[in-house]
Amino acid sequence: MTEPFDSDVVIIGAGPVGLFAVFQLGMLGLKAHVIDTLDQAGGQCAELYPEKPIFDIPGLPSVTGQGLVDNLLEQIRPFEPQFHFSQMVEQIIPLPDGRFRLTTDAGPSFNAKAVIIAAGGGSFQPKKPTYPGIDGYEGTSVFYAVRQRERFRGKKVLIVGGGDSALDWALNLQPIAERVTLMHRRDVFRAAPHSVAGMRALVASGDMDLALGQITTLHGDGRTLTGVTAQRGDLTTFHVEADMLLPFFGLIVKFGPVADWGLTLREHHIVVDTERFETSTPGIHAIGDINWYPGKLKLILSGFHESALAAQAIAARIRPGGVPKFEHSTSSSLLQEKLRALDRE
Amino acid sequence: MTEPFDSDVVIIGAGPVGLFAVFQLGMLGLKAHVIDTLDQAGGQCAELYPEKPIFDIPGLPSVTGQGLVDNLLEQIRPFEPQFHFSQMVEQIIPLPDGRFRLTTDAGPSFNAKAVIIAAGGGSFQPKKPTYPGIDGYEGTSVFYAVRQRERFRGKKVLIVGGGDSALDWALNLQPIAERVTLMHRRDVFRAAPHSVAGMRALVASGDMDLALGQITTLHGDGRTLTGVTAQRGDLTTFHVEADMLLPFFGLIVKFGPVADWGLTLREHHIVVDTERFETSTPGIHAIGDINWYPGKLKLILSGFHESALAAQAIAARIRPGGVPKFEHSTSSSLLQEKLRALDRE
Repeated sequence: MTEPFDSDVVIIGAGPVGLFAVFQLGMLGLKAHVIDTLDQAGGQCAELYPEKPIFDIPGLPSVTGQGLVDNLLEQIRPFEPQFHFSQMVEQIIPLPDGRFRLTTDAGPSFNAKAVIIAAGGGSFQPKKPTYPGIDGYEGTSVFYAVRQRERFRGKKVLIVGGGDSALDWALNLQPIAERVTLMHRRDVFRAAPHSVAGMRALVASGDMDLALGQITTLHGDGRTLTGVTAQRGDLTTFHVEADMLLPFFGLIVKFGPVADWGLTLREHHIVVDTERFETSTPGIHAIGDINWYPGKLKLILSGFHESALAAQAIAARIRPGGVPKFEHSTSSSLLQEKLRALDRE
Repeated sequence: MTEPFDSDVVIIGAGPVGLFAVFQLGMLGLKAHVIDTLDQAGGQCAELYPEKPIFDIPGLPSVTGQGLVDNLLEQIRPFEPQFHFSQMVEQIIPLPDGRFRLTTDAGPSFNAKAVIIAAGGGSFQPKKPTYPGIDGYEGTSVFYAVRQRERFRGKKVLIVGGGDSALDWALNLQPIAERVTLMHRRDVFRAAPHSVAGMRALVASGDMDLALGQITTLHGDGRTLTGVTAQRGDLTTFHVEADMLLPFFGLIVKFGPVADWGLTLREHHIVVDTERFETSTPGIHAIGDINWYPGKLKLILSGFHESALAAQAIAARIRPGGVPKFEHSTSSSLLQEKLRALDRE
């Protein structure tokens, strides 16, 4: 087992609120590791509406989800957050020394003096198809995300779906796979037009297969796939050889393991106080859409405020020397120093 | 007496937090009048550090005070706030019908269903010199701000001070006054270099007088000024004829009349709850730097959050039909409609 990462604070969730928590902690001299189930920062903001304008971020009359995330990443850069993407925190275990041990489904573990849960509506998880026996193939022949592209080299890869993930990975794996087959239930694709055009060109040149239909049966030994049977719209069936299956059916938000962490909940939200935004377990805070308190509004700007008060409470709890004197950003010598350091880069 | 203005809500204070309250109220269909003692929007942000960068507005890695205020003004434009500048709210009187009557020191009065106090550290007021008998001359011969430039036409105007206000008004009134004398205790000025250069040029050409010294005595009948006696650094004295005196000694923030409104206070802050950000008087809310609750941090971003919850509470209280369904800005039909209307302009 590898050594756990050591951090002042672990932030669960790299959406706008989790990102801004890095800033608030940083202003108080605290370092943060940030863990997210997605493969990049931004949470639902970047995942669900990257190009949709948001109008209610104070001081930004109109900004896209991605624009806001990019601004926040720039803003927290002086504090050098450590990101750990594509993994879900499964357990938070109190340690005898007052710290917490966090473990994720990707292997790493973390020791932290405090935890901030900024997980929004929960964790984004792939929508899984219900093909009989699929569970047995997961991790060997069936994957819902590509984490190691090399794993697909020389393989017969069957990609299912009509959106950006399906098309992007079909194009991306085609050069290294023995054969890529893209299967979709009908000949209409939601993906970006240039990706669709790229796919059509490869199909026309014979370098990729396009199959219209839906999988009904998986073939193999229950763990290693050999192919699938699929059904067309006219109910006729056909066979596709495949040793790798990648279904891209979109993401759903699941409250997930949060439910098992022993925190006081209220209708799938974590109950916090409004002074420290702390959960029923001292040292574990919850901010943003995942928390609840009287008057709670699910606004990004409320999460920003909550991150400031949570950071303050954490600093008061874990710093033996007490809370540093509260400084406004215009006069913070710490921030000024960090910004100067960046300038020199 | 003129008719009072009628408004859903009166916001006291046009700093960033008061401005953003216009947005939050507007999203709920409520109209706001905004009153401020300064002569423009922005509060201390624009008054004290217009050019100083702020680093802790979430999503704005670096923005000047003036830049933030400009952005907020653009953001609230769809909701057509009515501004009333250069006046201080003196009284808030509950009316029998549940509304409030507000009166200001400039004459107008307002009827409002709810009040939001967003007065920051209090009201900005001119620092007054302590020349014996000066009170009697105020409003006739002595002014701390120029509200009607024409009042100084053909007058012998004595301006005292070395900052931007003193220099700007010396230059601005010089063309219409019979004579402008600028008095400052020493021959060094804090004002912008181009203003100082402009003043020096007018003095050199004989079109303005510069006097170095400090006023010791006002001459006149106790109400109408005729001149002053001043003392130089070497203790010699001199006389300056003047029928108008404008001392520009900067601004101080005073808690002011807020203390008399019968609200529960704690060390010059208004105590509020964290669900509605309501004061001890139902219908009167306080947000931003002027309020206090456990955990309070004087951050602009906290004021933004507070404005959202206060607006929600106000809508629930004053709208007979109940609170409109909460809408995110990305899907608010009200905001979309208003933004389209602006586009057509």
